[in-house]
Parts: sequence; C-alpha cells; structure tokens
Amino acid sequence: MTELAEIGLIGLGVMGSNLALNIAEKGSRIAVYNRTPSRTREFVGEAGALGANIVSCETIEAFVVAIRPPRPIIIMIKAGEAVDQQIDALKPLLAGGDIIIDAGNANFRDTIARFDRLKDSGLTFIGMGVSGGEEGARHGPSIMVGGTQQSYARVEKVLTSIAARYDGEPCCAWLGTGGAGHFVKTIHNGIEYADMQMIAEIYGILRDGLGKSAREIGWIFGQWNKGRLNSYLIEITETVLATTDPQTGKPMVDMILDRAGQKGTGKWSAIEAQQMGVPATAIEAAVAARSLSSMKAEREAAEVIFGTPSYAFSLKDGEALLKDLELALFAAKIGAYAQGFAVMAQASREFGWELPMPTIARIWRAGCIIRSQFLDEITRAFTETPDVANLIVTSAFSAMVAESLPSLRRITAAAVTAGIPVPALASALSYFDAYRQARGTANLIQAQRDFFGAHGFDRTDGLDIHHGPWGSAG
Amino acid sequence: MTELAEIGLIGLGVMGSNLALNIAEKGSRIAVYNRTPSRTREFVGEAGALGANIVSCETIEAFVVAIRPPRPIIIMIKAGEAVDQQIDALKPLLAGGDIIIDAGNANFRDTIARFDRLKDSGLTFIGMGVSGGEEGARHGPSIMVGGTQQSYARVEKVLTSIAARYDGEPCCAWLGTGGAGHFVKTIHNGIEYADMQMIAEIYGILRDGLGKSAREIGWIFGQWNKGRLNSYLIEITETVLATTDPQTGKPMVDMILDRAGQKGTGKWSAIEAQQMGVPATAIEAAVAARSLSSMKAEREAAEVIFGTPSYAFSLKDGEALLKDLELALFAAKIGAYAQGFAVMAQASREFGWELPMPTIARIWRAGCIIRSQFLDEITRAFTETPDVANLIVTSAFSAMVAESLPSLRRITAAAVTAGIPVPALASALSYFDAYRQARGTANLIQAQRDFFGAHGFDRTDGLDIHHGPWGSAG
Repeated sequence: MTELAEIGLIGLGVMGSNLALNIAEKGSRIAVYNRTPSRTREFVGEAGALGANIVSCETIEAFVVAIRPPRPIIIMIKAGEAVDQQIDALKPLLAGGDIIIDAGNANFRDTIARFDRLKDSGLTFIGMGVSGGEEGARHGPSIMVGGTQQSYARVEKVLTSIAARYDGEPCCAWLGTGGAGHFVKTIHNGIEYADMQMIAEIYGILRDGLGKSAREIGWIFGQWNKGRLNSYLIEITETVLATTDPQTGKPMVDMILDRAGQKGTGKWSAIEAQQMGVPATAIEAAVAARSLSSMKAEREAAEVIFGTPSYAFSLKDGEALLKDLELALFAAKIGAYAQGFAVMAQASREFGWELPMPTIARIWRAGCIIRSQFLDEITRAFTETPDVANLIVTSAFSAMVAESLPSLRRITAAAVTAGIPVPALASALSYFDAYRQARGTANLIQAQRDFFGAHGFDRTDGLDIHHGPWGSAG
Repeated sequence: MTELAEIGLIGLGVMGSNLALNIAEKGSRIAVYNRTPSRTREFVGEAGALGANIVSCETIEAFVVAIRPPRPIIIMIKAGEAVDQQIDALKPLLAGGDIIIDAGNANFRDTIARFDRLKDSGLTFIGMGVSGGEEGARHGPSIMVGGTQQSYARVEKVLTSIAARYDGEPCCAWLGTGGAGHFVKTIHNGIEYADMQMIAEIYGILRDGLGKSAREIGWIFGQWNKGRLNSYLIEITETVLATTDPQTGKPMVDMILDRAGQKGTGKWSAIEAQQMGVPATAIEAAVAARSLSSMKAEREAAEVIFGTPSYAFSLKDGEALLKDLELALFAAKIGAYAQGFAVMAQASREFGWELPMPTIARIWRAGCIIRSQFLDEITRAFTETPDVANLIVTSAFSAMVAESLPSLRRITAAAVTAGIPVPALASALSYFDAYRQARGTANLIQAQRDFFGAHGFDRTDGLDIHHGPWGSAG
C-alpha cells in the first residue's frame, strides 16, 4: 500500500491545480481528484517531478481512502450550488473528525450555513479565503481560515508551508469560526476595489487633467512605488501602463475598453457594511464606479448632451503637483483601509468572531492583491492598540493623515473644479472630515424627523425633553 | 343588522387611527379592530361625529363579518413577525377573494414572500406603502399599492378618496404586483434620506463656513422655498430653524444632539441598489452620514486628535453665494432623484413589475415627505419620455443640470477646501461627472484585473483579443 496523503484536493481548475502543485512542492503528499478523470491525468503529466508527492485518484472513493484520517479535503470549485453537491457526495464516505475545506470565493453567509449544517455530522467545515490569483496559489497566497481551532490545527502545517511569507512569517492564519475566513477575504476584496479605483482616479487626473501619456504616467507610478505607496497594485500599474499593444504599437491601456467587470465580492462588502451600519463609502464609490463604467452606451449618449469638459486642471504641473498627487492617493488609501477594518471590527462583534486585526493586517502583507509595506504599518498600529476605534486615530496613522490630508483636499478640489470624476477620493475625504467633526449637522436631521414623524431627539444639555415645540416659530 | 363596512382596519396605533379617521371622514364605512379592546373603545371616543362611519369590533370574528365581501382588511401594525401572526390569525376567518393589505413599512422582499404564500389560498395580498407621517395618514397620504390589479379595483375608490391631491389628482396608484408598492416606498425613503442629508450639508456650510445663526439660515431656506427648491422638506427646514427652545430661549436646533436615527428604509434602498448594481451613491452617502452621526464619542475623540478646522469658506458671502448654494442644492437633488429612479427602473426589469415612472412621480407630488413642485417637473419629463435611460438626460432636466452644475462644482470645491463635510453633494457631483464621461478610466482597472487574474478585457477597436502581453514593457 502506498503512503497516505497528508491532505486531499478536489477540483483541478487553474486555482486548484496551482494550489496542489504548491502543496506538493512544499513536501506534503497530496491526493487529488477531479470530476473529469482526463483532467486528473493531464494534471499529473504537467506536475513533472512534483508528481512524486501527488496521489492521483480517478474515483472519489479511492480519493477519500488515500488520505490520512482525520482527512482534510480542500474543495476548489465554482462557488455556489456545486459546493453543496460536492459536500453531499463526500459526506457518506467520510468519518468523524474529517474536515471539508471550501477554498473558493464563497459568500461568508453560505459558509456559516454550511458550517452549521455539518455541525451534527461529526465532520467539520472550514471556509478558507485564498488571495493572490494564479501566481499566488502556485507560489504563495495569503490564506484566511475560518472554522474550529481544532480543525485548523490539523491543517496548519500544510497551509503555513504553502503561504506567502513576509519577513519570514507565513501569511496564513486562523481568524475565527464559521464564516470568519471568507468574510475577511470579502473585505480584502472590497478594499482592493477601493484601492484600484483610487489609482484609476489619479490616473484620470494625470491623463485628462494634465494630458500625460500612458508611458509618462507609468513612469510616475514607478517613482511612487519606491516610496510610501510601494505595493503590488502600484507596481502592476506601472507595468501595465508601460506595456505596448503588439497590434497597434500604442500603449496597451489606450486600446482597452473602459468597461470594468466585477465578480461580486466588492458588492458583498458594501452590502454587509450597509447591513451593519458601518460607513464604507470608499468601497461603495468604487463599486458604483465599476457599475457606471459598464453603462458605456449611456455615458456616450450623455457626453453628446453635456459636451466634453476641458478638464483644465488648476494646479500647476511639476514636482510639487506630483508630490501632492502621491500624498492624496496615500491619504485616500488610509481612508479606504480604515473603513474596511472598521467593517471587520463590527462584524467581529456581530458574529462573535473576535477577529484579530493585527493578524489580518499581518497576513495581507504578502501573497494577496493588496499586499504592501503599508500593511506592515497597519500591523504595527493594530498590534500597539488592538482595540482602537478606528485606524485613523492610531498614533502612527493620525500623523500620516495630518500630513497627507491637505494634499487630498487640494487634489479633490482641483479635480472637482475640472470635472474629473474622483468619487472614491472625495468619499475618503468626506469620511475624514465627518469623522473628526465633533459637532456635525445631524441635529437638523433630527429636528426634521421629529417635526414630520415625532421620532424624537436627545438634547445637548441632557434635559429629558425629546420633542420640539415646532410651529412656535419666532 | 347594521350596514356592512366597506373596508376593515387592524391596529389602532397613531398611523392606523389616523388612517381610519381619514377613511371615515371621506364617507366610507370602516370596521376597526385592535388587539387590546380598551384602545378600540378609546379610539371610538376620540372619533366624535366620525364615529357614525366606524364599526368598532372587540373580537376578530365580529370584525371580519362586519365587512362587505370580498373583504379588504388593512393591517397597520409593527413590521415583521407580527404581520405574519396577524395573517395567520385572519386566514381561517376569511373567504376566497378577501384581501389582506399590509400598510406598514415592510421590506418588499417580505411582501413578495407573503404575496406568494397567500397565492393558493384564494386570498390576495396587497403591500401598500403609505407616506406622509401622522398628518398625511389623517388628511391625505401618498399611497403606493402593490398587488393584483383585481384586488386594487376593490379598494381603489376608498384609497383614492383618502389620498392627498395635487391639482385635483389623487396621489394613489397601483404600481405592480407583489412587492412593487413597498419597494417604491423604500426608494421614496432612500431619496428622502439623500434630500435631507443634502439640506443638512448646505446648512453646515451656512453655519460653519459662513458663521450664520439658525435664524438667519432659516430665513434663507424660507427664501429658497419660494423658488425652484419649493418643497415640504425645505419648508419644514425653515420652520425648525426658526423655532425657539422654551427651556433656554436659544434656537431649538442648537439644543439638539447631532446624532441621527434611522429605521432601515434608507439602508434597504442602498442594499437593493447594490444588489442590482445600480449606482445610488447619494443615498449611500446619506445613510453613511447618519451612521457617522451616531458615532458621537468617536467623533469627539477624533476632533481632539485632529483639531477643529477653521472651516474658512473661500467664496464671498452675499447674494451671489446664496444663489450658488441654492443652485448647488438643486443640482445635487436632481442627482439623488435620478439615482432613485434609476434604481426603480432596474428593479422593474428584474422583478417584472413594469413600474410606471410618470405615475410614481405623480403620486409623490403631494402627501409624502419628499413632496414638491420638483416632482411635477419629473412627472412631465417621464411622461414625455417614459423609457429614458436616466432622468438627467431628459430635455428638461439636462437643461437644469447644465444650468446648476457649475454651482454644485464651486460649492463642493469650496466646502472640500474648507474641510466642511459634504459627502452627499460630492457624491451627486461625481455621479454627474462620471455619467457624462464617454471615456472613463476603467480601462486601467481592466488592465490590472487581466494582469493579476487573467479576467480579460474588450478592445476599443473591437479586435477579438482579450488579454494583454503584460511584461513586454517597453
């Protein structure tokens, strides 16, 4: 009999294959199974020398018995009903203590339901967020695990061995029970939406407000990538802006239609933030911007009606402006991350997860799409003050906000004046300005609500009177 | 035997009582029932001469037989489980064709479920949105009906008799099956959130940026109420700002805590817009602003850290600035309404309702909280072009946008510069600027997505190539 596998994986699509190769490469024996056996054979062919650590199985029964109990089985298939069908197919073959791990992009509410449904069966369920795309899956993703601590203990060694590393620390952690892992992955993606939209807005200012070419803009992002904005997204922005279209010889980005797709996680982030009443306006602005981008025909028709603005940017081009743009993007980015972490803090309370904020920041430092040195600073801030109400009031970030906010203010005002849309930058700025305002304007809203609906209000002097003498106007 | 009632009503709280009195006053005989009979007796005592049209019932059985079949029964109780319990209690007592009408603030998804559950029972279900607060319920609300057309025919006479009127036309209409009425009521409230938030932001500019007193600001809103902003919300803004607190002699609004409540419909609007991928950023900004307002302690702590800005407004006070503020509010308001109607248009497609946009605008002209002459203009625009993609590209509104947008731009830029939070104004402006931009910046986002996830893109020249040669940087 051959040696038992340490872990199993079902679903040899691009992500599943890469994850399996990563596991085999890091020295763990892995059993693999795919619905169509031809794909399994093809995969083993591709695996080369790593095949020595791969147990390829053509039936689900053979697959299950090839794994050392208690058996951890990663499912990496299309999110949704297919996952439930796969769980149903596995259940009769498994024994108490076996662990089903959904590594797809599930909605965390589905994950919670699956976790609860399996509770009484003796099996356990892990919802695992995996970020980093194909490359990450193959060479080191960021891994966000939700489930029981006991089940995590069974897979910790394998998962940490394949995860990305930042200063030697693996970007993999157990974050809480049930849907914690998939929830954190969802918010990761929401922040990613905001980060990308903010970059696109700055690109829009450079392109339309300052008339720069894709190559010039790429060079600027390249400079910024050496500074505090250093991150994977800025790095690839430089690369894509510098890429030439082989068909036309023009910059590749100039040949791409301005109609962005989305797969749902940005929307889920916004919806969950709304459900909990946590402001996530930068993420909402980013999701809305993608939706608006897809309404290409409407936008074209509207431009015919309203005309093309001159986009004349009022700030003078030069070193100082580039510094301002860099700081503006940095300030806005802080706002987006602050909102994302605030959403997670509230979810942690509502779902009883005790999400470890410093750990989340830590495992996002490498492997995932939003990886950056910035997340190392967030890690430090949350490690120092894990229960802080908001990232922007930590000592490190409040100083950064104080330094960079004037730039965000100048750039937003100039873009607004020029007619260049900057919804995410403006949302982040509004967020700062409202958040640090002790006395806002909701007193007027409370007065209106009491007037028309007798909804009541509290008084600034604490008197126990909750309705106005409306109509006794002087 | 006494004459049968034309309609029945369960739940004699403030809204239910007022609705019942309104029905009795307009000449329809109405049977009423309340869980606690003492309240029923009290209500009849309050009804005075109107009691002649009221059949008060102390048991649910007596209540049901007092109504002429097919029986329309309005339920006006707390939204949620209580409604289902009431339906269950009624079901065995009713006969085929009887109509249960939920007039509370239900989530339209619950309404659809209830409509579907009653389908096979021979009973029918109407979800009815009622706007206008206590006053509206008593003297003329705006009524949004969802259900079968046949069931609406049975109640049309009573409902149109009690509805508010605009130029003699009743503000009541059948809008579609199932959840159509409650959905439209939800979006009404979402727009109301945005409208109120925009008013509060302009108030903030006048108070913090220009140092005006509540009375001075009230006077300004009073002036605006004579112009194109004429509306119930502007009218009551003038009134509440002019009201004196009897306890202190100070303006009432200055004694009210800046912590706004919310009851869920604004949030529902934002969530449904997100679900459908329709940008509703002004509504989202308004919901977020209320959430931020409730985080009073966090805001106070943040102000200590960041300091109080000077809020120095760069535009000179005077007639021209007031005109600018008026037009800015007007432009932003168009954006909020355009978003709300776009959300309804998409919902109409997704839920198969064929929502009649001109009718919705028509029945919002009086009775409801957002009533205004502005809605008369929207009615005309949608009547002329009912299938227009967006309100802002109708001929009437595109002209208004062209006229007022420069003011919104100036005011937003000045507020942004002064540090006065204007999230809803800025969102509306970003919406216009992105909506009328034929070539946006999502090409960069598509390039990034293709780079890290091989998500693919379309080309501007239509060539059938969907991935970039990333890395072949020049």
